[in-house]
Amino acid sequence: MKTLFIGGIKSGKSKAAETYIKKISDSKPIYLATTEFIDDEMALRIAKHKEMRSDSFITQEEALDLKEIISLQKAPVLVECLSVWINNMLYHEHSYEEMQMQLAEIMQLKQNIVFVINDVSCGIIPQNKLAREFVDLNGKIAQFVAQECDEVYNVIAGISVQIK
Amino acid sequence: MKTLFIGGIKSGKSKAAETYIKKISDSKPIYLATTEFIDDEMALRIAKHKEMRSDSFITQEEALDLKEIISLQKAPVLVECLSVWINNMLYHEHSYEEMQMQLAEIMQLKQNIVFVINDVSCGIIPQNKLAREFVDLNGKIAQFVAQECDEVYNVIAGISVQIK
Amino acid sequence: MKTLFIGGIKSGKSKAAETYIKKISDSKPIYLATTEFIDDEMALRIAKHKEMRSDSFITQEEALDLKEIISLQKAPVLVECLSVWINNMLYHEHSYEEMQMQLAEIMQLKQNIVFVINDVSCGIIPQNKLAREFVDLNGKIAQFVAQECDEVYNVIAGISVQIK
Repeated sequence: MKTLFIGGIKSGKSKAAETYIKKISDSKPIYLATTEFIDDEMALRIAKHKEMRSDSFITQEEALDLKEIISLQKAPVLVECLSVWINNMLYHEHSYEEMQMQLAEIMQLKQNIVFVINDVSCGIIPQNKLAREFVDLNGKIAQFVAQECDEVYNVIAGISVQIK
Repeated sequence: MKTLFIGGIKSGKSKAAETYIKKISDSKPIYLATTEFIDDEMALRIAKHKEMRSDSFITQEEALDLKEIISLQKAPVLVECLSVWINNMLYHEHSYEEMQMQLAEIMQLKQNIVFVINDVSCGIIPQNKLAREFVDLNGKIAQFVAQECDEVYNVIAGISVQIK
Repeated sequence: MKTLFIGGIKSGKSKAAETYIKKISDSKPIYLATTEFIDDEMALRIAKHKEMRSDSFITQEEALDLKEIISLQKAPVLVECLSVWINNMLYHEHSYEEMQMQLAEIMQLKQNIVFVINDVSCGIIPQNKLAREFVDLNGKIAQFVAQECDEVYNVIAGISVQIK
């Protein structure tokens, strides 16, 4: 089964996804962290997140080739998060088509996979061209993944609303 | 019948609205493009959109007086999109009251009309005064149109959630 | 009973909350305005809001210690809005923990309380550090309040969608 959690910044989407994957896992689920580039502030956020998930997850880290690492796992995998992965892929000059192709392959894998994506779509169109490109790509990837997933949850103020 | 699709950037709202209007139309529906001012990037987006809707629509273009052109059509009309129209109206110094009055008149027309509007409400308040005014107007117009419509759909990651 | 209304800028969340509290009140409800720092534009907005609520509310104003003033009221209280209060608390260098503690105490009060909060979570991450901190805090407070409330409504284009 494939599941998507979408929500804004500090909407509680990660916590909701973590609770969800623990429920569907017999053994410790995999926490697949997609973060690559970190400054001090990001490092702090990551440390906090790691602390929050304590001993309930086996953490793996991969910035680009999610398919390879997911295919190696036996337990359900939480991909945290797709927006950061999109950012990494953009930075390494991978196209939308490459992202979509990798995701299509991931969808063929047998594992239970839970995806988290940041909803960045409801502000005004950014003046910065790169930000605009990111917003577009993030939206297109969210649509593609939502279409392929069995269940989709929109998280608002910590509340998961199932929309598919 | 009047219907509104609201969603963020690349939320899939346009595609959802297009699918919807094709379902409720016996003949080719009208695609009423509201775009007026275009730079190269916008031109690219428009070309892409035109290609996507291929041969399923009759395209009309009007930046300001939507009421006049809608009243001339026999087939259902897809207004794509209200946010661009608001921008045009602002640029030509039309007030909120004028926009609301025109929309109230459009709501009296007999045609089936499907409106699309961009949700720009869930970022932080923009520092730029014009952007702030636009966000306010867009929200007020969305409220007015939603109130007048028979059905309202919120589109998230390509999934239409009926909220009215 | 405790209730939360969350929505973007000009989403109609305040109007929805006002309609709601009038329905659950036997006597005139309290409108607790949290605004502290105002410039001309804010003053205009506030004047407009005051005019809109006309004679249906008793208005109280408090920027920081909401608990004290709420505990003194007999009628249901509309807290308008938490996002402005968070901003005030930040300005006066109160921590998230202090905010959470005060809110936890408010939740223990017997009154019916209706909270309004601005959803600022669905834009791109702001470059400005203060804005980023505000977005984080606002989201965490929204989660905390939503968790403690009996009912939560997400307001989109003037339509209240009950999500809890």
